[in-house]
Amino acid sequence: MSILTVGTMAFDSIETPYGKAEKVIGGACTYISWAASYWYDRIHLVSIVGRDFPEDEIASLAIRGVSMEGLVRRKDMDSFFWAGKYHADMNGRDTLITDLNVLAEFNPVLPESYRDSRYIMLGNLTPSIQTAVLDQLRGRPEVVVLDTMNFWMDTALDELKKVLARVDVLTINDEEARQLSGERSLVKAASVIREMGPRYLIIKKGEHGALLFHEDQIFFAPGLPMAEVIDPTGAGDSFAGGLIGYLARTGDISFRNMKTALIYGSVMASFCVEDFSIDRLRNLTEAEIHQRIHQFENLSSFDVNELPIRRQS
Amino acid sequence: MSILTVGTMAFDSIETPYGKAEKVIGGACTYISWAASYWYDRIHLVSIVGRDFPEDEIASLAIRGVSMEGLVRRKDMDSFFWAGKYHADMNGRDTLITDLNVLAEFNPVLPESYRDSRYIMLGNLTPSIQTAVLDQLRGRPEVVVLDTMNFWMDTALDELKKVLARVDVLTINDEEARQLSGERSLVKAASVIREMGPRYLIIKKGEHGALLFHEDQIFFAPGLPMAEVIDPTGAGDSFAGGLIGYLARTGDISFRNMKTALIYGSVMASFCVEDFSIDRLRNLTEAEIHQRIHQFENLSSFDVNELPIRRQS
Repeated sequence: MSILTVGTMAFDSIETPYGKAEKVIGGACTYISWAASYWYDRIHLVSIVGRDFPEDEIASLAIRGVSMEGLVRRKDMDSFFWAGKYHADMNGRDTLITDLNVLAEFNPVLPESYRDSRYIMLGNLTPSIQTAVLDQLRGRPEVVVLDTMNFWMDTALDELKKVLARVDVLTINDEEARQLSGERSLVKAASVIREMGPRYLIIKKGEHGALLFHEDQIFFAPGLPMAEVIDPTGAGDSFAGGLIGYLARTGDISFRNMKTALIYGSVMASFCVEDFSIDRLRNLTEAEIHQRIHQFENLSSFDVNELPIRRQS
Repeated sequence: MSILTVGTMAFDSIETPYGKAEKVIGGACTYISWAASYWYDRIHLVSIVGRDFPEDEIASLAIRGVSMEGLVRRKDMDSFFWAGKYHADMNGRDTLITDLNVLAEFNPVLPESYRDSRYIMLGNLTPSIQTAVLDQLRGRPEVVVLDTMNFWMDTALDELKKVLARVDVLTINDEEARQLSGERSLVKAASVIREMGPRYLIIKKGEHGALLFHEDQIFFAPGLPMAEVIDPTGAGDSFAGGLIGYLARTGDISFRNMKTALIYGSVMASFCVEDFSIDRLRNLTEAEIHQRIHQFENLSSFDVNELPIRRQS
C-alpha cells in the first residue's frame, strides 16, 4: 500500500505583511509530501524540477521515505517559479510572476513500481494531467483525492468534470465551490458538486476552517486561531498531505475517520503557516504534533445536555 | 434570580436577496427576549416603544414570562425604525434609514423589582445608557453580558471603555474586535480586549461561527451551514438571548458551561435567520430545538487518537 503524490515542486517568492522570502522551496507536491511523511513512509512522488532545484532538498524528502523514482530532472530548463504578494488581511493575494518553465513539459509517466499505489493525492494541475495519472494506475485505488482551482474552471471545465467523475474526495475553496456549482449556499453547492462524482467534498475556508460534505452529513474542522500567520502559502497542500497520510496510515475511509483526517490535515496546515516555505514542516516533533491535535480537540469540544425547553405557561 | 434584558424594540424594513419585509417587528431586546424565553421565564425587559408598536406583540412576549414593567410606552412619538439592505453575499449590509424617534428619549429607570436581577444582558445601545443600567442594580450580578458595535467605538470610546471595565462577557464581531484592540490577529485582539475588563470575550464571525476567549483557552462554536439564509437581522441578538437564557437556567458561568451556552446561542441564531423578523422564534418546539442542538454536535465532533508519528528512518 503506497501513497502517490502528484504535483509541482517549485520556487516561490513571497511577500506578506510579516516579511519577504525570495526564491524559497515551494510547490504542491513538496508540501503534500512533507506533511504526509509524518504519518506514512511509502510515498511515491511524481513531479518535475529544473537544473536550479537543490539536490539536498530532494534528498531530505527521500530520507523521509519519499520515492524519487517518479521525479523528472530537466537539466536544460529551470523549475516552475511563482511570485506572489499577500494582502494586508492575508485572505487574498496577487500573483506577480508565473514562470512555467519545466511545468510546460510535464507529462508524467508512472514508474512500474508506482502503478499499484492505493492512496492517490492529485495536487492542483491541469485536469488532463490528473486524468493521465489515473489512467496509468492498475486496479482500483482505495481513495483518490483531487485538488484543483478556479483557473481550471475558467479554462478547462470539461476536462475538469471528466476527472471529477473519477475521484472520491475533492478539495476546493468556498469561492471555487460557488463557481463550480453556480450556487451561493455551500450546502446547495455541495449537493451539485457531489453529483459530479466525489463522494466526499471538502470546502476549505482558509482561516475559517474546512467543511466536509458526505451524503446528508456535514462536518466542520475549525481553523486554529493563531497569534501570527507568517505565510499562508502551502497551507492547502499541507492540509491535503496530512489528510492522505492519515488515511493511508489508518486504511479507513469511513466518514467517521475522514473527519479525523480533516483534523490531521488542519494540524499540518496550522504548522505550515507559522513560517515561510516548508521550514516549519522540516522538524516537527511527536510532542508538538500531539499538543496541536489536542488544541483542535479543546477548540471544538463541548457538552450537550437534554435540558427541556421551558413550557409556555 | 432573574434575567434583565435591555435594548431596543423597533420596526425594521429589510431587503435581502430572498425578498423584502416592510416595517416588521425588530430590535435587540425583542430578539434577545424571545430567544431567552425558551430557557428561562423570569425575564425583566427594559425598553421603549412608541404609539405605533402593536400591543399584541408586547402581550405575546409577556405571555412567555417577560415582565413589561420596565417597558416605556410613549404615546407622542413613533418607535425606533431601521431600514437596511443586505448585499448579495449576505455578509454585508447598508443602512438606508435610521429614525431614532423614541430612542432619543431613552433613559431607562429600573423598576424596584428589577434591581436584584442576576443575569444581565445589555443589548447594543449608547454605552452611557448601559452604564446607567448597571448603576441601578443592587449587589453584584452573577454575570453581565454586553453587546456593542463599531459606531460606539467611533463616537463614544471612552464611555465604552468605562462600561467594559464592569462586564463579564463582551460580544462583538471580528472587525469590531480588530478596531477596538488595534490588532489584526484575533488571538492578540482578545488579549488586549480582555485587559479592558471582560473575563470572557465572544467574537462573532457571522456564518463562520463564534470564538470564545477566556484566560489562555479558546473555544470555537461553528456556524451551521444552511441551505438558505432568509434574513440575518437579529442573529447576533438571538445568539445573546440563547446564551443568557441558558446561563440563567443552569446557574453556571464556568468556562465549560460557557462553551455550551455559545452552542445554545448559535442554535437560536440559526433559527432566527430562517425567516424575516422574529417569525421563526415564535413557535419553536422541543423536538426542533433538540434536533438542532444535535446538528451542532454532529458538525463538531470527531475522534482523536494517539497515533504516533512515523519515526524518520
